[in-house]
Order: sequence, then C-alpha cells, then structure tokens
Amino acid sequence: MLVRTCLTADGLPQEITGKEAVVVIDVLRASSTIITAFNSGCREVIPVASPEEALEMKKNLPKECLLGGEREALIIPGFDLGNSPQEYRPEIVRGKTLVMTTTNGTKALILSKGAASSLIGGFLNASAVTGKLASAPEVLLACAGTKGRFSLEDFAAAGAIAHRLSIRGAKLADLTMAACGLYLAYREKLEALLSASEHGQRIIRLGWQADISYCGQEDLCPVVPVFQENSLRIVI
Amino acid sequence: MLVRTCLTADGLPQEITGKEAVVVIDVLRASSTIITAFNSGCREVIPVASPEEALEMKKNLPKECLLGGEREALIIPGFDLGNSPQEYRPEIVRGKTLVMTTTNGTKALILSKGAASSLIGGFLNASAVTGKLASAPEVLLACAGTKGRFSLEDFAAAGAIAHRLSIRGAKLADLTMAACGLYLAYREKLEALLSASEHGQRIIRLGWQADISYCGQEDLCPVVPVFQENSLRIVI
Repeated sequence: MLVRTCLTADGLPQEITGKEAVVVIDVLRASSTIITAFNSGCREVIPVASPEEALEMKKNLPKECLLGGEREALIIPGFDLGNSPQEYRPEIVRGKTLVMTTTNGTKALILSKGAASSLIGGFLNASAVTGKLASAPEVLLACAGTKGRFSLEDFAAAGAIAHRLSIRGAKLADLTMAACGLYLAYREKLEALLSASEHGQRIIRLGWQADISYCGQEDLCPVVPVFQENSLRIVI
Repeated sequence: MLVRTCLTADGLPQEITGKEAVVVIDVLRASSTIITAFNSGCREVIPVASPEEALEMKKNLPKECLLGGEREALIIPGFDLGNSPQEYRPEIVRGKTLVMTTTNGTKALILSKGAASSLIGGFLNASAVTGKLASAPEVLLACAGTKGRFSLEDFAAAGAIAHRLSIRGAKLADLTMAACGLYLAYREKLEALLSASEHGQRIIRLGWQADISYCGQEDLCPVVPVFQENSLRIVI
C-alpha cells in the first residue's frame, strides 16, 4: 500500500487517480464534528457546497433533518447547528439526517468523488480509519487546508493515520513521511500544536479553546463515516 | 520575524513579496554542492537556467572558469563537473568561477530574484544561515523540490533552519512549523531520512550513497553563499 498526501482541498482533483481510498481530514473542525455526530448516533450526513443548497434541500427532507455548518467559522443564518463538535450531542442528533456545509471540509469531500472510496478521518478516529483502510491498495490522505492554504492540524492528523498505516507495512510517499514526522514530534502535545496553528489561533480568538482540546484527542470515537451516493453513513 | 516555507521552485514566484530574505534549499544536491564549493575556496558561482546558456557563457569568461551541474542527476556533456559535492574539492575549485545549472536548485535561485535577498542553505550550513538571517524582518525558506514535486530532504533542512530561528524568537507559519516538527523527529537520524526520501532513493540507485551521508551533516561548512547581481559569492 502506497500512502500519498495532498495539502489542500483545491489540490485534490489532480491527485485522484480513481484507484485510491481518500481520507478527508479537516481537524478544525468539519471532520471532527462529523465523526462526533456519528459517534452520537446520527444516521446520515449529506455534505453540500453552499448554504443555499442546504436550505433548499431541507425543504425536501423529513422534518427531523438538521442543518449544520459554518462560514468564517460562524453558524449560518437559518441553520440549526454550527461547526463545533460540542453541539452534536446524542440528544440533539441521534437518528437524524444532517445536511452540512463548511468552507473546507465538505468541499474536500465533494471534490473526492472520483476516488474508489472516501472516508472522514481525524485524530478522533485515527485507529478506526486505519483499520478500515486495511485492504486498500492505495491511500490518499486529503488535508482540507484552510481556504486553499496549508493547515498544520490537518497535516498532523494525516501523520497520525500514516504512522498507524506504516506500522502495518504501508509505504509512505515523501509528503506523507513528513506528516508522519510532524506527528511523531508532537504526539504527546497535540493540543499545543493545534493551539499554535494559524487556524487554531483563529478558533481560540472566537472563544472555542475547548474545541481545540477536544479535536486533538486520539481514538476517542471508533467510527468511520463513509461517503457513498452523495451522503456519509457508517458502513458495517 | 515571520518564517514562511515554500515547497517547490515552481511555487516560489507567487510567495515572494519583495520584503523577505529567501533561503534556497536543494539538499540533494545543488545547495550542498554550492556550499561545499565555497567551503573549498571557490570565488563565485554563476547559476544559469540551461546547459546551452552555461556553454555560451564559458566563451566569454576566463579560462579558469569551470562548468558544473546535472540533468537527470548526471553530468552534462561538455561540462567539467557534475552535481556531486565530493567533486568540488579545494584543489579543483579554489579561486575559480563556476557556472552551474541544475534541474531544481539553480532554477529556484533564479526564480528568487524579486526577494530582498537570496541565500543558499542546507544542513551543511544551517547555523551559519541562521546567523546571517538575524536582521531579516521576514524569511522565506524556499525548498527547491524535485521537478515541481515536494522533496522530503529539502523540507527537513528547512526545518533545521526554522528550528534554529525559532530558538532566537522567530514566529513560524504553519508549513514552517511542520518542517520544524519533521526535523525534530529525525535530527538524530538525518541520513536515514534522506536515504528513505524519493530523490534519495534515486541518488542511491545511481551509486551516490556517500553523497547522502555527506549532505545530511549539520554545520560542516560555515559559509553562506549570497546571490547578488546574478552570481553567488561569500559576502562578509
């Protein structure tokens, strides 16, 4: 198994060959929020590109559907939930369908469509994702980045998954080896790394320090959301 | 001081604002070869874009000028020297002007022209480069990469310089923090890291394992080649 890495959502289409399992990683916060939603018992997450598309879709879905996501890290007018994983508690999302739109994470997911399969990964489910990838011939760790720029926290989470894959014998491409090195240097202080990152600093300024602590925890949620036919579900 | 990082020579022009000191890093092997040439007493290195330009330039330079460089990692027909630092010994290059062309390193140097200043850096002169950058308001660590792709060894050397700058109080952008993490994870085993890199593997297949060991040594050559008026010199 060869494990490649891509640094931004925008760069994803040219990296996809069609043979690989893509792991979409947007640690702060779309990946972490989606993983948490499924860990809280949500039934399905439908990623869409724009708030308008989400509002339009809600008209055609049952009433128990919820709209979630962000623009500029803030909740979108008319939406039920923002993009903080802390909002996605069992009493709110259990059994529900969520329609989500975020700036980077859901964009990367939509751009991963040409791949053999797409999963959602982060620190929260690093080991579970690794298990799910066991039979993939190729893996592409797709860091969502932030508005077309590199994001430290996504790269470190790619490293967390890459490290686990390398223990199982996977071959790491250069960029993946770099991600792995970053993870190994900071695995005991992930919260500090996430807090120091450019996007982490923005999240902290907005008052969500608790999200940083939460999203930097490894293997808290043993669930792997799989993207099939335009929506995410847990596939057993 | 803010320290940014760029991953390939091709990406360099859009990162340059004009305010920064650029450090061009092509560990395997242009940077390491040029640093070694100056450490061996060479007087001047003129980087050019193509073998044809180098051959044409030689006609107008004194006879003691030497042509060096590579295409596909091999010496260019009609040239005096290839791109192995081991060739650039004092008895060969002392007092000489070298005209050099390489696939990635000299290309990055030529593309750095809009910056406030350009230096050559690598593991070999990491501490010396850090000292030279002390008064720069901004630094851009320009990894040359390999034919438009990320190179692990350049990123790790960017990390070696970034780590030294951060000790002096510099602020590291996300990508620079990642490079620093990679360096910190592998600082005791740089030869292993360079050997495992994609370009390192190619160099080894061509029989230059000794170059890998050599280029991964920190602070062996306390010289900083500075790019001014189309040529590199040691500026005191």
